[in-house]
Amino acid sequence: MKGLTKWTDTIVAIATPPGLGALGIIRLSGSEAVGVVNALFPSKDLAKQASHTLHVGFLQEGETVLDEVVVSLYKAPRSYTGEDIVEISCHGSPYILQQVVHACIQQGARLATQGEFTQRAFLNNKMDLAQAEAVADLIAADTEAMKQTAMRQLRGGFSHDLDNLREQLINFAALIELELDFSQEDVEFADRTALQELITSLKAKISELVSSFKLGNVIKNGVSVAIIGKPNAGKSTLLNALLNEERAIVSDIAGTTRDTIEETLNINGVLFRLIDTAGIREHTTDVIEQIGVGRSLAKMREANVVVYLFDVQDTDTHAFQQQIGLLEKDGLIYLPVGNKADSKPLASLQKEYVHDDIIFLSAKDKTNIQQLKQALYDIAVGGTINTESTIVTNARHHAALLKIHESLQDIDAGMQENLTSDLLVLDIRRCLHYLSEITGRIEVDRDILGTIFGKFCIGK
Amino acid sequence: MKGLTKWTDTIVAIATPPGLGALGIIRLSGSEAVGVVNALFPSKDLAKQASHTLHVGFLQEGETVLDEVVVSLYKAPRSYTGEDIVEISCHGSPYILQQVVHACIQQGARLATQGEFTQRAFLNNKMDLAQAEAVADLIAADTEAMKQTAMRQLRGGFSHDLDNLREQLINFAALIELELDFSQEDVEFADRTALQELITSLKAKISELVSSFKLGNVIKNGVSVAIIGKPNAGKSTLLNALLNEERAIVSDIAGTTRDTIEETLNINGVLFRLIDTAGIREHTTDVIEQIGVGRSLAKMREANVVVYLFDVQDTDTHAFQQQIGLLEKDGLIYLPVGNKADSKPLASLQKEYVHDDIIFLSAKDKTNIQQLKQALYDIAVGGTINTESTIVTNARHHAALLKIHESLQDIDAGMQENLTSDLLVLDIRRCLHYLSEITGRIEVDRDILGTIFGKFCIGK
Repeated sequence: MKGLTKWTDTIVAIATPPGLGALGIIRLSGSEAVGVVNALFPSKDLAKQASHTLHVGFLQEGETVLDEVVVSLYKAPRSYTGEDIVEISCHGSPYILQQVVHACIQQGARLATQGEFTQRAFLNNKMDLAQAEAVADLIAADTEAMKQTAMRQLRGGFSHDLDNLREQLINFAALIELELDFSQEDVEFADRTALQELITSLKAKISELVSSFKLGNVIKNGVSVAIIGKPNAGKSTLLNALLNEERAIVSDIAGTTRDTIEETLNINGVLFRLIDTAGIREHTTDVIEQIGVGRSLAKMREANVVVYLFDVQDTDTHAFQQQIGLLEKDGLIYLPVGNKADSKPLASLQKEYVHDDIIFLSAKDKTNIQQLKQALYDIAVGGTINTESTIVTNARHHAALLKIHESLQDIDAGMQENLTSDLLVLDIRRCLHYLSEITGRIEVDRDILGTIFGKFCIGK
Repeated sequence: MKGLTKWTDTIVAIATPPGLGALGIIRLSGSEAVGVVNALFPSKDLAKQASHTLHVGFLQEGETVLDEVVVSLYKAPRSYTGEDIVEISCHGSPYILQQVVHACIQQGARLATQGEFTQRAFLNNKMDLAQAEAVADLIAADTEAMKQTAMRQLRGGFSHDLDNLREQLINFAALIELELDFSQEDVEFADRTALQELITSLKAKISELVSSFKLGNVIKNGVSVAIIGKPNAGKSTLLNALLNEERAIVSDIAGTTRDTIEETLNINGVLFRLIDTAGIREHTTDVIEQIGVGRSLAKMREANVVVYLFDVQDTDTHAFQQQIGLLEKDGLIYLPVGNKADSKPLASLQKEYVHDDIIFLSAKDKTNIQQLKQALYDIAVGGTINTESTIVTNARHHAALLKIHESLQDIDAGMQENLTSDLLVLDIRRCLHYLSEITGRIEVDRDILGTIFGKFCIGK
């Protein structure tokens, strides 16, 4: 049992999103889950009912009716957590849900922490750690690429890849360790050439996984795009054109946008978070607006891509070169976009503003918007996404994979230097340790588990 | 069947609130509900499974896995709607939920309209109309008073009261109609004294229900309270003191609050919606702030109660009297509150500002806040709430009850004037019509049903 005490107390949480809805679900898991709900459910004895059945009735605390509900029963071990699970489907009133949770606590349950249901599923061997992490990713998925990547990981695709690598390495380690037992006799059971080949192939595979993380990160977290430019360059209009809706309040008063506005845009299955910033002005007298401008400079530096929007009627070549120079000095990835380009012929614009990647468009007339979208996608993804192969999306996995790669390199170097078996074995063990850490096959530190499941929502 | 065609097509909707959660539920109802889900659920044949059972498996559209789900089966007529119902419990990703709904539509289901599940429950005689309306109220309930009132109505308390009244009136009408058959013989089967007594008692009962609506409205919709006053009178600070948290951005720059801020406060189980308005100034040069001020005057006139907040250090007796005069001229229910009252002795304040209901407090030090809360509660409720008796919370019911009262008065007047039986019967029938309209015992106009169920959330 991975060295952790098995939890047996009963946890309770609201499992549906906050807010009004037709239904709201409360979930309990633990050895007393059925007992807790039974005490509030006078209609029938739930303890005598079969697993995987539904029961309609009133939930009551003494004489007070809490709600008319449907109770779902899942008896251990045939449940998500491997423990008894009871789900209560209530009317979707946040007030009623709170009352029901409170009543369950009165009966001896305690509030679940974030991800505690899934953590129990992991501790009860219902899934490995990489699969558990995929649950949170799946819930957060808001593009097809993200969903397929998480689903593949949840179904064990990534774990399977790692298990393959681990098995090869274990077989090999066994041979090396055998050598160790006969070290006095100077035999080599392990074929060094085959070992060399294995290490090379493992390194290649791990390198592939490590480098998939760049794309994985884009798939998982999206790409932040800061739209910057002088007041009235048309930033809010461009944002609306990209989103194809009237989101930002557009007006002719310079400085209308005080708060930064963030909107998401799905381009070919990848999420872009567009940030419209307050117009960057050098002089402003309005205190509140100054705060806004300060924030927009910070947002710009945090963004993955900066769209530098300028008004071709209002920005001379000198100002353009100066601005581009500042962006390049800051080392930012940027895309220069000339707005209101319908006012001049394209040829003369291209002569005037000299830059390879410049896109001329009209935000108001929505011309060339598609070209901008494609340019953003190319910068972020730089190719096409193949969700059939494993893509690493998790920073913890990425860190572990880097360590694995490092130990493989140490093994490699050791072999070149004809290191003795006992020393090689140490490096192989280190490599195995990091491999097992990803799937949680070895004892995982409680702090690490806390960090992993702390990212979950309550009730999962 | 109430004259409406029985729907048999299959409807689908997301039944949980929008946003991320551990779980999201999709609900289907109709004769093809099982068939639609079966086509997406390769693990087993759902059509062969018993009602009230749970089934775990992958939901797939061809080769593409949509999600790993739990399917709940409710076979007709043992379901909420009286039709076959299937609920699909997915991972709580809005993206996945959308995909699953889309897949169900591909299989022949159509998107449910608001409240369509409950409307079907009504049409299939699972509940009467007043009970159906209580479902929406129950979901919106956010105080104990509101929940208990809705629960009583859902469990048929209100319908039972109305049925009682209706039965008495029907018995009576029968006797009167019998007279009609013998009208040539000038007999009186119905005892006119008993009829008179019945009408008087019915009128009293209906009056009671009608007047309960004032409280019902307070329970259901809460009480809107506009906090008005000059800039820097301390409106945002008072709001924070009432809510006991730092909600509004408090600053010393006059005019910081540009948007009206709305927060809810629960006082003894009744909900108050507090509206902090932009400082009302006569002269302002900021265009955006002027819009804010205009909006705050409108908010003030819409509010149930106006809290007029003034700074005792800054408002002289003359200005105070002038403001109070304006509020009275507008016919508003208002409560004058003197802020920063810790700066002067109470006795001298009471001498200075002459008004019966004035409350002196310090928003910053949170003194006398409780007194203000009690005063607000007294204005709104004017007594205590007894949820054991029926409280009318629904405007449609209120309107029908007024019509019922009107026809009872007509019957009463007719009897005084010794009206003939055939004319009395017309009034009695009119009265019965309105009584039946509340519970939907008579054919209800499709437009009225549309209005009623249009207030529901989708998926209920």
